[in-house]
Amino acid sequence: MGAPAPFSSRWVPLPEHCRLLDDTDVLPGGFRAAGVAAGIKPSGGTDVGLLVCDAPDATSAARFTRSGTAAAPVLLTRERCRLDAIRAIAVNSGNANAATGSMGLQDAAKMQGAGAMAAGVSEDQVAICSTGVIGVPLDARAVVKGLAGARADPRTGGAGDLQRSIMTTDLFEKRAALAVDLPGGTVRLTAQAKGAGMIQPSFATMLCFVQTDAVLSAETADLLLSVCVQRSFDRISVDGQLSTNDTVILQASGASGVVVEPESDAERAFGEALDALLRELAVAIVRDGEGSERIGRVVVRGGHAASVERTARAIANSPLVKTALHGGDPNWGRIVQAAGMAVVDAAPLPVDVSIEGVQVCVAGQAIGHDAEDLAARVRGPEVEYAVGLPGDGVETEVFFSDLGHEYIRINAEYTT
Amino acid sequence: MGAPAPFSSRWVPLPEHCRLLDDTDVLPGGFRAAGVAAGIKPSGGTDVGLLVCDAPDATSAARFTRSGTAAAPVLLTRERCRLDAIRAIAVNSGNANAATGSMGLQDAAKMQGAGAMAAGVSEDQVAICSTGVIGVPLDARAVVKGLAGARADPRTGGAGDLQRSIMTTDLFEKRAALAVDLPGGTVRLTAQAKGAGMIQPSFATMLCFVQTDAVLSAETADLLLSVCVQRSFDRISVDGQLSTNDTVILQASGASGVVVEPESDAERAFGEALDALLRELAVAIVRDGEGSERIGRVVVRGGHAASVERTARAIANSPLVKTALHGGDPNWGRIVQAAGMAVVDAAPLPVDVSIEGVQVCVAGQAIGHDAEDLAARVRGPEVEYAVGLPGDGVETEVFFSDLGHEYIRINAEYTT
Repeated sequence: MGAPAPFSSRWVPLPEHCRLLDDTDVLPGGFRAAGVAAGIKPSGGTDVGLLVCDAPDATSAARFTRSGTAAAPVLLTRERCRLDAIRAIAVNSGNANAATGSMGLQDAAKMQGAGAMAAGVSEDQVAICSTGVIGVPLDARAVVKGLAGARADPRTGGAGDLQRSIMTTDLFEKRAALAVDLPGGTVRLTAQAKGAGMIQPSFATMLCFVQTDAVLSAETADLLLSVCVQRSFDRISVDGQLSTNDTVILQASGASGVVVEPESDAERAFGEALDALLRELAVAIVRDGEGSERIGRVVVRGGHAASVERTARAIANSPLVKTALHGGDPNWGRIVQAAGMAVVDAAPLPVDVSIEGVQVCVAGQAIGHDAEDLAARVRGPEVEYAVGLPGDGVETEVFFSDLGHEYIRINAEYTT
Repeated sequence: MGAPAPFSSRWVPLPEHCRLLDDTDVLPGGFRAAGVAAGIKPSGGTDVGLLVCDAPDATSAARFTRSGTAAAPVLLTRERCRLDAIRAIAVNSGNANAATGSMGLQDAAKMQGAGAMAAGVSEDQVAICSTGVIGVPLDARAVVKGLAGARADPRTGGAGDLQRSIMTTDLFEKRAALAVDLPGGTVRLTAQAKGAGMIQPSFATMLCFVQTDAVLSAETADLLLSVCVQRSFDRISVDGQLSTNDTVILQASGASGVVVEPESDAERAFGEALDALLRELAVAIVRDGEGSERIGRVVVRGGHAASVERTARAIANSPLVKTALHGGDPNWGRIVQAAGMAVVDAAPLPVDVSIEGVQVCVAGQAIGHDAEDLAARVRGPEVEYAVGLPGDGVETEVFFSDLGHEYIRINAEYTT
């Protein structure tokens, strides 16, 4: 799939009090960014980035992968960074610095130190991120040199360069910029994300950086980020694979002077904007799912939260469902099969299935429908599946990519 | 992959007291089988089969899918068949009779009745199985007619016709015949299996029928089948997908007069033979995994049973691991990533990884190895991964297929 027009999915409407900004390269007041080519990527592309918030009292919040084999940058940032007051982010692509043991931690520490030097802030206010191949020692010297070079060019804006410094198998750049009208004035909200494969985030995405010039307490930033990540990056899957490096960071410079108080109308409005922005980027990651040509959304309703969640994941991650989506084939029997796999030892499960609004299965039993009409509906760029389990009160959704030849080509030939 | 020579995998040696029989079409004494083309498969191929045990005191044991959306034939056989005294199996391919509700149960009952008529046994001694597309009403009239025709040709042997009547996307026939030397004499043991996609059985495989002329009590049959299924069909995955129709049935005619007493040397020897036979067929299913060119075996050791099991499944089912296997790429970082996904919130997990005996990661840290040597080793038809988690005392294995273009082609274009 090519780069989508922002907020073009019917699943992610732009809230009325938000305005899409054409220039996604410029960051909100108080932020600057840079990206350089430091020789980590074999392609010679941009691979080291630096994001700096110049406000001394910047606030922040962060979420990380739950992986048991989390990469060194994740371990280091979690342990040695003031997550509520992150001033700078130092990042590299082309190497994940994962499965690299104590040397990897030392390299991550060097990167944090170089980031602090380059940004002019203290080390414990620098978060670091890496993405790329796992199990290969990081060339920390090259990254440090790159960060020093990135420091030499600290211009206003630079979100595009930062963006490019985190891309790996991504086919298109995933970033957006919003102007958000709050009761006290207008603030800006920008974000840059990367991710295309090894995507089933748990508490974060591969990498996503979010900036605002609103005045947010760290507690408010944490609360809003937590809720919005749960509704965005936690609800997507390309290949069901939790990454070792997933990180999402929200920073607020306060440069606009517009205050977002807890439990205020401003907080609700800001939260809605953040929610829309993160969902937009989450869906963009799915759309950029390695080789993806078509994306799906499964909505599961029922009375038992764990079964509802398992069923949604089972469907979203089923290679049979994903290949059918790729082929533009309704093949809803595979939805029933995946649901049965999620809820074992309970047959017969009276599952309801509808696809693009066409009901095909009621209480576990096929019902008549217009097969040609359905076949036409599943050939569009977005396909929605609704699944009903017994009971009610619980509903969840997962966005997922299809599975086609390009995924095989990319992953059988590319060492990530 | 083409049809393998039987017992050609290093992972499944043929026990010394077993002899492979060339003629896999002939069944042990007391059994007869047939397969006919009844018009269920669009291809016009053989799609209805009948297996009959003529011994009135035949014993049996059976295992079924745990799916919450189990197909009508599974529901009916579990509820309305004497599972310890199965005399006949009536089967069709081309339609799974799944997600077909109460009409599907009625169709399954018709099939059971027709099987009883054709075999000349009582209805409650007839097991029925179906495999094929989900969510399409079964043409029960055609199946019943087919079973009547199958009855008209009850010759000794017929395992090949039975085999062909259960095949769907299978590229090669999966059956074997053994002569097994027991202390009291030689018995015969034969089996026919089908399966290539929608394969991650839980308590069974897609379909597998096993026959012996040994004298087995129903209790012994159940015990041995339970243990051997756990070590074979429960340990394989093509695409991580639990089927709605998985069924495995063992029948003993007693025609040889050789008695297998509980807890005897004969039981151990018979059990070893059954174990080898089912593991052989399980690996054959993986080797026939849709589009598979290379197969893997992951062995995970550690101290926590649930983590060991989750890790083995996470690796075997990772599309990133499977595409790397397909591409002949060691890419062991994906093994570490999958392990981290299986054991969350516990970083850093000190995982050990070796591939084909080459150690690449110790306690979560990459170690030096001969990359060219390793690359050569992963280009063979079978690749073994060993993963160590903290602790000891628990070990498990999963056999899995790779993921290549053929899987996409088959599953994006074929309605199953």
